[in-house]
Amino acid sequence: MAVPPDPRDLPGPFRYRRTIEVRFPDTDAMGHVNNATFLTYIEAARLGYFEAVMGRPLPLAAHGASESMILAEARLTFRSPAYYGETLTVEARVGRIGRTSFTQDYRVLAPASRYGRARLVAVADAVQVMYDYTSERPIPVPEEMIVACERYEGRRLRDL
Amino acid sequence: MAVPPDPRDLPGPFRYRRTIEVRFPDTDAMGHVNNATFLTYIEAARLGYFEAVMGRPLPLAAHGASESMILAEARLTFRSPAYYGETLTVEARVGRIGRTSFTQDYRVLAPASRYGRARLVAVADAVQVMYDYTSERPIPVPEEMIVACERYEGRRLRDL
Amino acid sequence: MAVPPDPRDLPGPFRYRRTIEVRFPDTDAMGHVNNATFLTYIEAARLGYFEAVMGRPLPLAAHGASESMILAEARLTFRSPAYYGETLTVEARVGRIGRTSFTQDYRVLAPASRYGRARLVAVADAVQVMYDYTSERPIPVPEEMIVACERYEGRRLRDL
Amino acid sequence: MAVPPDPRDLPGPFRYRRTIEVRFPDTDAMGHVNNATFLTYIEAARLGYFEAVMGRPLPLAAHGASESMILAEARLTFRSPAYYGETLTVEARVGRIGRTSFTQDYRVLAPASRYGRARLVAVADAVQVMYDYTSERPIPVPEEMIVACERYEGRRLRDL
Repeated sequence: MAVPPDPRDLPGPFRYRRTIEVRFPDTDAMGHVNNATFLTYIEAARLGYFEAVMGRPLPLAAHGASESMILAEARLTFRSPAYYGETLTVEARVGRIGRTSFTQDYRVLAPASRYGRARLVAVADAVQVMYDYTSERPIPVPEEMIVACERYEGRRLRDL
Repeated sequence: MAVPPDPRDLPGPFRYRRTIEVRFPDTDAMGHVNNATFLTYIEAARLGYFEAVMGRPLPLAAHGASESMILAEARLTFRSPAYYGETLTVEARVGRIGRTSFTQDYRVLAPASRYGRARLVAVADAVQVMYDYTSERPIPVPEEMIVACERYEGRRLRDL
Repeated sequence: MAVPPDPRDLPGPFRYRRTIEVRFPDTDAMGHVNNATFLTYIEAARLGYFEAVMGRPLPLAAHGASESMILAEARLTFRSPAYYGETLTVEARVGRIGRTSFTQDYRVLAPASRYGRARLVAVADAVQVMYDYTSERPIPVPEEMIVACERYEGRRLRDL
Repeated sequence: MAVPPDPRDLPGPFRYRRTIEVRFPDTDAMGHVNNATFLTYIEAARLGYFEAVMGRPLPLAAHGASESMILAEARLTFRSPAYYGETLTVEARVGRIGRTSFTQDYRVLAPASRYGRARLVAVADAVQVMYDYTSERPIPVPEEMIVACERYEGRRLRDL
């Protein structure tokens, strides 16, 4: 009899995945990747995800865009250490899209290596808010982005 | 009529607080402190908290200790940007202490400065697990640590 | 008979010094502070130096200034490891001021601690260029800055 | 008539090269890659270089090796900014091998992209020392490593 998947593992399909090579200074004196680094890995997957979905890089306020997305909340669960010498895989998907915000899920996986067996390293979920830097207010998630995400994920994402 | 405190602000007293000066590379091309840096600020408060409570630095596996605490889960809410040139205050407290784990709350505050008014920058809560690196298993939170935390916080922290 | 100072130690007086607390993720899996972190420590001393000399924060292109200084060259010599738990002292001084550039010297020192005896951790020297971000060209070091540096250091700094 | 190569550009062949994707927090509030990050890029090339030359990962003290190499000195020249969204190429070669130390040269290059034309971003040279962590003393560069480097570079590297 099959064991049902643990919801804390964020089971289910992830279409988007990318690899991230651990850099030596990603580690700390504990010998493994520092906890804060995982927010950086997840950020790389978030930016890559929207580039894959939209077919172009995400407009960044850093590059002059007046409308962009803001990370409002992030929750990480650390499952297993990761080491220098490993190339990790980070998976990302959009969960639900609300009026001005949407959720994302992330999984960080390590392959079998001389540092350990294949394993789930961390999972995370996050809330992003669409934001207008000129008016300094949240704005509706653009319809073009909703359509692109739903097409990419192959399912309805918008609430209601 | 007083507005009741918003529980998302983690209201209530924090006895422990420390300042953290924003370093220039804590910022990113958005112009403000990068989201991952907040896990570093919180880590500094966690290490400082236990040094204040126990009266000595936390034994770190990095320095040869076989028993230490592991960050199992962290949830951050980003409330307002922080900037280079600001000295932030990070508050920390222990929430509840279970058999092998305990929770902590954190608040990151910016003072009024030429970069903005006094404001709540981020709040976070985290779960830590006491861990034996030799047996690779969780271990009970040491009674000495529970007593020291309860004395420091001035209230009962252990779950029944 | 006194041993003459080793010129590689950048001997001589430093009027400016500031402390920097080692953060845990400044370390790497070697157990000590990662080499790249020292450029961050030196940057903090550079920004602090000019704030002390000029009596106000350095105008940063990051904050809208059109004229600022650019790090053109840096040379670091690593003398001894530094550890988490240590508060380092970083010393800085201006060496010589040319037409559009000037040199700086830096020393990073660790106090006696449970991690080791008092010691010279690293020395560095650097070349900065005054730069106009609008015209994208080097510009003369402002006379006001030369005067302020010479007053602070108590000696002539400009070439010729 | 050909312009002779500028020796400050570290001209000449580099057999080893690897790509490095700029991560968003590699940048700072100036909008481009922070200067300290280049020491991290160079470290990645150094570790990759010896893995390519020796056919196996460099034994790291971080992973229990008692003999390893220590970065003794590094000099960086910053030539042009690099941006998030760029994938850089880092070239590395061994210069000369002495009794207990050896030199390396590095070049960081950006391809033509929407952020700028193809350009030299930074050059660096460094001195590494072979070190025995048990005796805490420099040790001779292993003959096996000299032979492997000379075979890889296709020229004599050892002094005299």
